[in-house]
Amino acid sequence: MSDAQIIHADAAYVENELVEHVQVVVRDGQIADVGAQCDAASVRLSGRALLPGLVNAHSHAFQVGLRGQAEYYPPEGGDFWSWREEMYRLVERTGGEEFERLCRAAFEEMLSAGITTVGEFHYFHHDANHRGYAMDERVRRAAAAAGIRLVLLQSYYATGAIGRPLAGGQRHFDSRPLDAFWKQLEALRATLDTRREHIGVAPHSIRAVPPDQLVELRRLAPPEMPFHIHVEEQTREIEECIAAYGSSPLEFLIRNRVPGAGMTAVHCTHSRPEAMSRFLAEGGRVCVCPLTEGNLGDGIADLDTILARAGGAVCIGTDSNVRIDLLEELRWLEFVQRLRRRRRGATAPPDGRLARQLLRCATENGAAALAVATGALRAGLAADMITVDLSDADRRSAPPDALLNRLIFSGSAADIRDVMVAGRWVRGPAQR
Amino acid sequence: MSDAQIIHADAAYVENELVEHVQVVVRDGQIADVGAQCDAASVRLSGRALLPGLVNAHSHAFQVGLRGQAEYYPPEGGDFWSWREEMYRLVERTGGEEFERLCRAAFEEMLSAGITTVGEFHYFHHDANHRGYAMDERVRRAAAAAGIRLVLLQSYYATGAIGRPLAGGQRHFDSRPLDAFWKQLEALRATLDTRREHIGVAPHSIRAVPPDQLVELRRLAPPEMPFHIHVEEQTREIEECIAAYGSSPLEFLIRNRVPGAGMTAVHCTHSRPEAMSRFLAEGGRVCVCPLTEGNLGDGIADLDTILARAGGAVCIGTDSNVRIDLLEELRWLEFVQRLRRRRRGATAPPDGRLARQLLRCATENGAAALAVATGALRAGLAADMITVDLSDADRRSAPPDALLNRLIFSGSAADIRDVMVAGRWVRGPAQR
Repeated sequence: MSDAQIIHADAAYVENELVEHVQVVVRDGQIADVGAQCDAASVRLSGRALLPGLVNAHSHAFQVGLRGQAEYYPPEGGDFWSWREEMYRLVERTGGEEFERLCRAAFEEMLSAGITTVGEFHYFHHDANHRGYAMDERVRRAAAAAGIRLVLLQSYYATGAIGRPLAGGQRHFDSRPLDAFWKQLEALRATLDTRREHIGVAPHSIRAVPPDQLVELRRLAPPEMPFHIHVEEQTREIEECIAAYGSSPLEFLIRNRVPGAGMTAVHCTHSRPEAMSRFLAEGGRVCVCPLTEGNLGDGIADLDTILARAGGAVCIGTDSNVRIDLLEELRWLEFVQRLRRRRRGATAPPDGRLARQLLRCATENGAAALAVATGALRAGLAADMITVDLSDADRRSAPPDALLNRLIFSGSAADIRDVMVAGRWVRGPAQR
Repeated sequence: MSDAQIIHADAAYVENELVEHVQVVVRDGQIADVGAQCDAASVRLSGRALLPGLVNAHSHAFQVGLRGQAEYYPPEGGDFWSWREEMYRLVERTGGEEFERLCRAAFEEMLSAGITTVGEFHYFHHDANHRGYAMDERVRRAAAAAGIRLVLLQSYYATGAIGRPLAGGQRHFDSRPLDAFWKQLEALRATLDTRREHIGVAPHSIRAVPPDQLVELRRLAPPEMPFHIHVEEQTREIEECIAAYGSSPLEFLIRNRVPGAGMTAVHCTHSRPEAMSRFLAEGGRVCVCPLTEGNLGDGIADLDTILARAGGAVCIGTDSNVRIDLLEELRWLEFVQRLRRRRRGATAPPDGRLARQLLRCATENGAAALAVATGALRAGLAADMITVDLSDADRRSAPPDALLNRLIFSGSAADIRDVMVAGRWVRGPAQR
């Protein structure tokens, strides 16, 4: 793919520590070596700290088209369900070209915000004629044009609610019959550019997928393939699931032996601790989306149970992309828990080094949830990296965790400088 | 002060509406006219929307020195009180020059974030020798050097807790005796550069000010002067006040007839609805500080009562300045209420136009709380203005509230472009 680059920043985040003057060797889109004492760096990043690229484990990119449009409120107020109607209206008015433009704009903004990998939970499969899977290639083209690593979480969507037909905008999501859906997934899989394209399967939710089809998807999907599903974001969804199947969505998944290696449940805002503990014990992961959950008024997840049981199980998603800033997501992941518990360091690990744990949610944990070899500066992983400014004297003189603390608690997407995906600079040193 | 400037942006926020091609005439640091159809604009801001400068009603600028330093957690976790110990350590290690440098850095960052007026709740009066009010002039110098409009909320601090002596870092805050404090306040007042310096009085809290001295301060302060106090941020503060005086801090203020025209209570995180209603009825205002309250794990204020009774009574502060971004503050002011109530538009006014109400918190309401004639583009007010980018085609084509919605729900401090304070550009058109 390219000759080796030897990258030398003033500091680099290696093995969860920020260390000075480490060199990173990049070859063929991968990190070939970390820490080698080379004489001649081909890329010298002065005044910069090198970090692994951020991983956004849950996105619906086209929803950037809702920005500014879904914040009017009827006298009775609004909620997740009224927001969803706005989103369906966006779907109905968005053609193929506009869909691709929106996705590309979202992916480009993600790169500027330091996100090098996106898990795109993709259910908007059909354009106006409601046939084919025309939009799937558009997502891929948008990601390729932007230069972001794409994990296409190909979503299966069959019912409008439990036992209800698809209606209105939902018809653009129609993935039936299941065998045709799986054939399309295999066709996509066969044509991936594996340097920066990956695939997973994503039954949309218990609302949208009948039990037999959910079990069939689990059977079809290889164990290591990402298997993502929306779970328990809203209490109404839980009530309807209990009424229909006698258990909550999370309990339903456990009962039907759906959790496994690739499994990530998105939201879990209202999940009960007992079900969550069992889900985690079976290898399940949880993706939390603080900005979207705040915007939609979903509620506050019980992270205590998740973190006590499996600190590595939490990843982060920008979901509706109302705002794209994983640092703000991490900060408010923690702040919302503090507000609930009236304690600081609500999610801190036993060693008290909270910032490292939060950064892990947006790097290694996300990479694991998406089954991509990225998320750390380590030989053998993809060369997905970002830099932040070290030129502020306070930052340079501060102890290592102080920089991470400042980045997460005081920083924003605007602090990201250079961005590399699969060994290619998509932001940065071109101008240096 | 200067010749007139005729400023013509593509759009301007006038009377709570974003209107196209309005011209703003600035003369002698004030807005002389809005909407005049002049032929020759002296400053043409293409692709920009002109908004009133943002007002930060509550800041402790020097606390930027804590960034990255106060996020380690002991095994037992931390809270407001352990954070306060960190803050006292910062006070003990910060000399006069460093204090001024920190304040200036904070004020410059505020300007970059579109904050043109800061209410600096200033209690760090003394440097290492614990005498004089050496730090007061340093706050003023820092604000003047940065170019921000300063409302010096001169804070009175006499006890370490109810009935307890000052200890450790608190000795730098010592404002006793009260007559000397008031003499210093009058001395400051006499030397203000009234184009961009203003003064208020700020008894620190019920913890730090004995009842008789609080009443005396109320008596000394002119009714129109800002009179700010920290109230009910923590339940322990409420418990100690009830134990000592038989009522909560807010009830105590009401009982002692402290509320009046200039009155702003900062936080009110745990205030009871009945006391809040009475406080508002007597003209009191409330300053909420979402980022700091999230960082400190204070809890979630009951904004329903405040907004139902007096929508114009809420203003916003960056408080500890852990992060300086009033757009993020506004977004999470609302999101935290949504999470608590599981509704969208939790604080929306009857007309459903939420973004306008939120922006008002960070402009007009803040200006009223600080008794400064700023916070809107209106003839006779100070020429404090900011611009945001309109160059994104989506923004330009969107309906007016869509831009405000995007700014507040999707934007950040990084979206601010030009900044004018008192008729002087402190960011912006110099380079244009």
